[in-house]
Amino acid sequence: MSTSSIIAIDAMGGDFGPEVTIPASLECLKDNANLSLIFVGDEKLISAHLKAQGQQNSERVNIQHATQKVEMDDSPAKVLRTKKDSSMRVAINLVRDGEADACVSAGNTGALMATARFVLKMIPGIDRPAIISTLPSVFGHTHVLDLGANVDSGAEHLFQFGVMGSELVKALDGIDNPTVGLLNIGEEEMKGNEQVKMAAQLFETSHLNYIGFVEGTALNAGSAKVDLIVTDGFVGNVALKSIEGAAKMIGVALKEALNKNLLTKLVALVVMPVLANFKKRIDPRLYNGATFLGLRGTVVKSHGGADIVAFANAVKIAEVEITHNVTKKISERVQLVLSERES
Amino acid sequence: MSTSSIIAIDAMGGDFGPEVTIPASLECLKDNANLSLIFVGDEKLISAHLKAQGQQNSERVNIQHATQKVEMDDSPAKVLRTKKDSSMRVAINLVRDGEADACVSAGNTGALMATARFVLKMIPGIDRPAIISTLPSVFGHTHVLDLGANVDSGAEHLFQFGVMGSELVKALDGIDNPTVGLLNIGEEEMKGNEQVKMAAQLFETSHLNYIGFVEGTALNAGSAKVDLIVTDGFVGNVALKSIEGAAKMIGVALKEALNKNLLTKLVALVVMPVLANFKKRIDPRLYNGATFLGLRGTVVKSHGGADIVAFANAVKIAEVEITHNVTKKISERVQLVLSERES
Repeated sequence: MSTSSIIAIDAMGGDFGPEVTIPASLECLKDNANLSLIFVGDEKLISAHLKAQGQQNSERVNIQHATQKVEMDDSPAKVLRTKKDSSMRVAINLVRDGEADACVSAGNTGALMATARFVLKMIPGIDRPAIISTLPSVFGHTHVLDLGANVDSGAEHLFQFGVMGSELVKALDGIDNPTVGLLNIGEEEMKGNEQVKMAAQLFETSHLNYIGFVEGTALNAGSAKVDLIVTDGFVGNVALKSIEGAAKMIGVALKEALNKNLLTKLVALVVMPVLANFKKRIDPRLYNGATFLGLRGTVVKSHGGADIVAFANAVKIAEVEITHNVTKKISERVQLVLSERES
Repeated sequence: MSTSSIIAIDAMGGDFGPEVTIPASLECLKDNANLSLIFVGDEKLISAHLKAQGQQNSERVNIQHATQKVEMDDSPAKVLRTKKDSSMRVAINLVRDGEADACVSAGNTGALMATARFVLKMIPGIDRPAIISTLPSVFGHTHVLDLGANVDSGAEHLFQFGVMGSELVKALDGIDNPTVGLLNIGEEEMKGNEQVKMAAQLFETSHLNYIGFVEGTALNAGSAKVDLIVTDGFVGNVALKSIEGAAKMIGVALKEALNKNLLTKLVALVVMPVLANFKKRIDPRLYNGATFLGLRGTVVKSHGGADIVAFANAVKIAEVEITHNVTKKISERVQLVLSERES
């Protein structure tokens, strides 16, 4: 597609700030001739980093100065009240004002969510924003929401997550009718809590391609591919971090086994290239980038500890969402679902 | 210790029935001279299997005939109503009647929980039973409950899980003051749902060695060892199965990488013995065996698909719990906590 996209980058966000955000975003610029960037943050610092990257002044690379920076442990309330000129807030303002089509930040999740919600407002008909991301699976990948924006989501919220998530998955995966599963503690109808059982009824009678309850295994493996898995944010966040912990433990155990003695160290030398291939397949950096859904504007959250490869992936997700007009499509779909319900 | 232990084995339970339950239990008999077994189920079938295993009639190996068998998809209600002479029910009856000190079953979880609760009754002061199991971690292992017996656990339930789980961990790990963490979506106090926040207050003011909130990563990795992690059954079950799925996916990716071409297949030959070592470290069979806590009797649930190594591990868990009088200790501790609260 030839639509041009402008992305506001919160250059100061994340554990590494401009050291990561700038080279990563410039990588994306090389790959996509229709992309322009606005780096938001300390102008001098950003200029220095751009220079170091050999980046000339260009129509496609702009700087928007912001005097403040959101710290990783700043509370959302404090950020809303006292950091109105932070790189995060100013980047989101650019989206609100139509000067950018999306914002990407590696800043702290709570502050980013609170600011995005305050500045951009919710899509009419959506009660709560949700965080969606992609996980690797034996079938390729799966999309999951909510990953922690909400706790105690009711049936109606879960249904809204399903409607929004489906639109995003259509765009990201280029498929027409993504399958949707509800995360539960068993596949039988009688299992689960009240919210999940009531949500199942809403999903069953909807336009969504609902396939029923799925268990935790379905996030990475399971018996069949599910394009979108819907759950409450408390459950989704715990599941996501459990998977992170499991992967870490397996990595540590593998390393220990290969480091055990001289013989195993020799084996390690031989197996390394094969393992590199294996790691690439499930590299979390290639899944970095969580989208905030339900807002009147596109905001992608990168992991705070993202490196250049990982942050670039988050920027690419924002690009795809802009190209496919995901926020607008979600809004239209929500209005349609609402009007069908009223009629 | 020289206390003698009698374990009732639901010989017919699980995907493989006596083919697994009998040889696995006989393995445990070899290792522990103070152990006796009562195999419950079809007498003829059990006799044949014992004979095939070269097992002579002995004081330590008894058979209790039962005419029925609980199927993996039988509903708990159906089992309670129509399967009063099932191997599962009769094995639990033996515990109630003091003829066995514990029961081990690989039968369906819902039916086993419902039957155990109905036959054995709850410990006074405990509202709901909970399922606890052990997970491998980078620090050795961690115990987690509840894994699916309860959904929508309130603060008081979570606290009861903590009290019961601590007593079990003391026995299984031989430690005096196990650390206890509450599973949450962040380590900060303000995060989480109402149940978790209120539970934190109960934990903080209790005798438990409470260390605060932990995230999903703590189940297998995390920043420090936690002996016991407490959560609602919906969340715990999803987390457990998410970890299962992640491990499966990583295994599949590893296998694919090693099977890619002739060269990687040669590498695989070299690396196999090292990988065998690695697998052993996180072998789920060595963590098989979930205990039902809160009942007036010891019931250990094996995974339905358990093989001989895995089922034997579940039997060993029951042995340790009998030796350490875990059920009695939990009951005493609960009465103490209750009386302290009243005073």
